Amino acid sequence: MRISTKDGAGGRKMQEFLEEVILDTFGDSSVGSIGLGNLDDGASFGNYIISTDGHTVKPLFFKGGDIGRLSACGTINDVSVMGARPILITCSLIIQAGFELEDLKRAMVSMKESCDEADVKLVAGDTKVVEDEIGLYVSTTGVGEYWDGLETNLDIIRETQDYPENFIKDSGLAPGDKIILSGTVGDHGISIMSEREELNIFGDLASDVCPVWGITRRAIETGGVSAMKDPTRGGISAALNEMSDKSAVKITMFEEKIPVKNSIRAAADILGINFHDVANEGKVVIGAREEYAEDILEAVRRSKYGKDAVICGEVSEGSKVFLRTKIGARRLMNIPEGDPVPRVC
Amino acid sequence: MRISTKDGAGGRKMQEFLEEVILDTFGDSSVGSIGLGNLDDGASFGNYIISTDGHTVKPLFFKGGDIGRLSACGTINDVSVMGARPILITCSLIIQAGFELEDLKRAMVSMKESCDEADVKLVAGDTKVVEDEIGLYVSTTGVGEYWDGLETNLDIIRETQDYPENFIKDSGLAPGDKIILSGTVGDHGISIMSEREELNIFGDLASDVCPVWGITRRAIETGGVSAMKDPTRGGISAALNEMSDKSAVKITMFEEKIPVKNSIRAAADILGINFHDVANEGKVVIGAREEYAEDILEAVRRSKYGKDAVICGEVSEGSKVFLRTKIGARRLMNIPEGDPVPRVC
Repeated sequence: MRISTKDGAGGRKMQEFLEEVILDTFGDSSVGSIGLGNLDDGASFGNYIISTDGHTVKPLFFKGGDIGRLSACGTINDVSVMGARPILITCSLIIQAGFELEDLKRAMVSMKESCDEADVKLVAGDTKVVEDEIGLYVSTTGVGEYWDGLETNLDIIRETQDYPENFIKDSGLAPGDKIILSGTVGDHGISIMSEREELNIFGDLASDVCPVWGITRRAIETGGVSAMKDPTRGGISAALNEMSDKSAVKITMFEEKIPVKNSIRAAADILGINFHDVANEGKVVIGAREEYAEDILEAVRRSKYGKDAVICGEVSEGSKVFLRTKIGARRLMNIPEGDPVPRVC
Repeated sequence: MRISTKDGAGGRKMQEFLEEVILDTFGDSSVGSIGLGNLDDGASFGNYIISTDGHTVKPLFFKGGDIGRLSACGTINDVSVMGARPILITCSLIIQAGFELEDLKRAMVSMKESCDEADVKLVAGDTKVVEDEIGLYVSTTGVGEYWDGLETNLDIIRETQDYPENFIKDSGLAPGDKIILSGTVGDHGISIMSEREELNIFGDLASDVCPVWGITRRAIETGGVSAMKDPTRGGISAALNEMSDKSAVKITMFEEKIPVKNSIRAAADILGINFHDVANEGKVVIGAREEYAEDILEAVRRSKYGKDAVICGEVSEGSKVFLRTKIGARRLMNIPEGDPVPRVC
């Protein structure tokens, strides 16, 4: 058996791969209550969350961002959606011999600016230079910490649910919860693909890559956040299905309410790609207790990257994720096999 | 300017590269007292140490180990030599499409066994699959924690030195200290290079890759450890020069006492490589207060991977690292430009 690109594309195939290769070998490996077996955005130890991501995006510099910003935000966002306050990242650079020093510096400056936005420090790193034709790969690890606002939020959740965790998991959704999307979907994946295919007609196509800590902090400070996830590889389709599976609930999304830019929709049509299935790099899917949902929405809208937030789904007893149209038609929102855009992050 | 392999080879060139590209951009970036600017084996936050390493070794499977064991030990050892008790690692896999699943599983099993040896858990990870011809790259991040034995050790150091840190730094050497090597040098680099050059005559050539926590734990429990470093890329030449520089002391190594296997010495001669300059992956350079040095030596020798440990150097006022022969000749031990063996870790 040989490994295929779908095994690393964030969808159903990758889940199977992780179960067969990683979980089979390491088991439910953990030092805190959230470990490898949870396949969540990160793992817990003491009062901290840790998360790791490798970044192999092509091209390295794209409209709206670059590999430096992407790799900082990648792990900052993973710890943010678990409710932790991001404090540091580490960075492993693997660089092709002959790579332009100026391009590397440009990516590092971009990484630094993204760290500054979230008040995160790069504290350690490693550099390898190889003859392989790779350009630049960047693996980052992020650490976030428990904080007061999170405790207050979890106390609210515990009023109606047995919730022994100190962080926010994918599995916290309960019937009655609302689903909030922090902004438009599909921006990162569709704009990367459009750039590769040279679909230049859509002038405002750009990646949404940004640190989401401003969004998650405001949501948590409001209280009543039951689950969060950043819909990266596999898009909101993969994220919502994982949340539905792990929480053992049904999610119904109101199709017309899911925010998407016209240019992204048009480009997705031309490319033949479902924008629900592609990576976002600056968005959050938020599960919110019904009575707190409107307040969370308002709080998220006040954050720098949350202006387009909407309530666009609801949670009920059952299973699977459904899309419902204005006229009442309903269809399954499946987890994709994998993200249809290769080398997206 | 283009990046060259020497920029990632662990010697003087890499130091310059890190200062120009990373420190210039990020400054002295830290959340604890040991941060990026220290260029130590890891960084501190709260009661923890964190460290990151990318692994691009060729071949992936070699005598004595493989990329799985190497990448687990890489960061386990970095946190161990700072005196921390390693508790967890995370792992970012970047895999070439078409890579044999069985080879990946074999590397993962090896990683798991190395983790088990040091009682470390793999808690989080990420997988990317690319079309680039890379085989397999593995970036790991390790976290270690403060523990009782470390506190006792540091109290001893503080009797004779102002030492505000909670972990063991490269800069802790003081005049009068002894230098202990936990075992033979050159094994990893020379055996990897011999394998590539098909020097099959040396049957017992094998990498020394192993977790050094057993060594560092026993040394620290004894007390009086002032500085530690694992001499990876650039070998003991780079490690000793960094310790000498950061501690602002002179180190004199007794050349004939530095342990080296006959086969490694012979292979190094044929290859024209100085075995002092190549990576070790299971060794520790230990700085020890004089009155504790013999006890530390005995403790290290009782550990699984420390049987060949010796006291082979001493620290005095001054600067630089010197090699002294039995008949009293003395010469400078320079920091190499970079590790003479490419793709060694």
